[in-house]
Amino acid sequence: MTRNLIPIDSAEDPRIAAYRNIRERDLVGRQGRFVAEGRVVLNVLFSTSRFTAESVFLRENRVAGLFDLIERIPETVPIYTASASIMDEVAGFEIHRGILAIGRKRETSGEALLDTLPEAALVVALSGISNHDNMGSIFRNAASFGAAAVLLTDDCCDPLYRKAIRVSVGAALKLPFARFSDTATLATALHDRGYSILALSPQGKIDIAEIKRDPRHALLLGSEGHGLSEEDMKRLPTARIAMAPDFDSLNVAAASAIALHRLWCPV
Amino acid sequence: MTRNLIPIDSAEDPRIAAYRNIRERDLVGRQGRFVAEGRVVLNVLFSTSRFTAESVFLRENRVAGLFDLIERIPETVPIYTASASIMDEVAGFEIHRGILAIGRKRETSGEALLDTLPEAALVVALSGISNHDNMGSIFRNAASFGAAAVLLTDDCCDPLYRKAIRVSVGAALKLPFARFSDTATLATALHDRGYSILALSPQGKIDIAEIKRDPRHALLLGSEGHGLSEEDMKRLPTARIAMAPDFDSLNVAAASAIALHRLWCPV
Repeated sequence: MTRNLIPIDSAEDPRIAAYRNIRERDLVGRQGRFVAEGRVVLNVLFSTSRFTAESVFLRENRVAGLFDLIERIPETVPIYTASASIMDEVAGFEIHRGILAIGRKRETSGEALLDTLPEAALVVALSGISNHDNMGSIFRNAASFGAAAVLLTDDCCDPLYRKAIRVSVGAALKLPFARFSDTATLATALHDRGYSILALSPQGKIDIAEIKRDPRHALLLGSEGHGLSEEDMKRLPTARIAMAPDFDSLNVAAASAIALHRLWCPV
Repeated sequence: MTRNLIPIDSAEDPRIAAYRNIRERDLVGRQGRFVAEGRVVLNVLFSTSRFTAESVFLRENRVAGLFDLIERIPETVPIYTASASIMDEVAGFEIHRGILAIGRKRETSGEALLDTLPEAALVVALSGISNHDNMGSIFRNAASFGAAAVLLTDDCCDPLYRKAIRVSVGAALKLPFARFSDTATLATALHDRGYSILALSPQGKIDIAEIKRDPRHALLLGSEGHGLSEEDMKRLPTARIAMAPDFDSLNVAAASAIALHRLWCPV
């Protein structure tokens, strides 16, 4: 291997400024730019044209075990290496896996993404999902049940937030996603392309167990607090998950697992 | 209302020592004794004989809205009140809801709990679940699908850990649970009482969609990392959830939602 590695000897080195206090900066929305962590996630990052990377930052004692990964990294992307103590000092906490990168997502419009999907496809549409745990879990479930893409309204949180990526076990990078301004625009784009939309809600009209999968099917999930708006519920076919009458309700991620399992068709 | 409230004027008051630095002390296992938080959870705490309370701690400006709750609290349980600033200082972070209690669970053997269940019952059995998020989610799903009880092996984490209660939205208190030394003992106790046991695993023999619910059915879930042991898998009927072949796997809580939805029979 002849790839150049750039050793970093000080936590103050400006070349690794993007990795400084990762945890705190996560609190600020930085849509499009994100911290990728661990071998699985970096492998995804360098295997799709949907992402570019600004740089990679490795703990020096991990390099020997990462030749396969390093070979996939374009020559134009600098690879920094440092000792565990410098790496942890920069990041602001212990980086167990010693593998970091700053990635950037190429922006795609929701319509453009839909136009790339195959003739038969299951997609997940999210309206107002604001919790990163739920976002990560929904992506993981969507990947488990072969969804082709995730569509988000603009008020959804960022699937590339560090915690969401981690909870998704990489699915947030694996599944293509794009945003729409609101649920109505999203629904119109789906209808225009022949998708059946199924809005999931505790007040849904049809039991999810009765739903038959159409070749192009979209599962629409509403926000954790208020669910889908009355307008959306009136405009779209709705399904519910039958459950015990005396308990609150399912979490939206758990509901997505049940509905996606129902809608999934093994090829 | 004539109930005596005990005002607390200093964060150093030894009577509220149990509430000190709640978050940090959560890190230490304190099985049986737990912090209850919020109106919903306290209502459960004071509505079942499975729990006792050592004390209640309310923010003084919440008292007027909590008469219904306060009336349910036995005279023997002291109710402390304090200003928001004292309460937050004691707890070590901001207690948004201003409603806390120290609860204690009456210990029950797993066998004794099983003997209280009705003729037809769905129970959830957990082996080696170590993540409090998953524990809370599984309890929430179990309550959503009418499970009568949760059985845990001794190496499972505590469902009454603060985060697990919160994620369960109170189900960790609502559903009775008890422990067994290990999976084999647990399975024997279920068999002896006529339960069909279904062990869920990516390597399971039968598709979960094909499973027929028996009157007494137990769903057994294994640990996040290793799943169920080979021994357990050989000894018990196993089911899998069909999913996309090229992705890791479902999270155990998501898997529990799908399987419980399948096993649930509305009465």
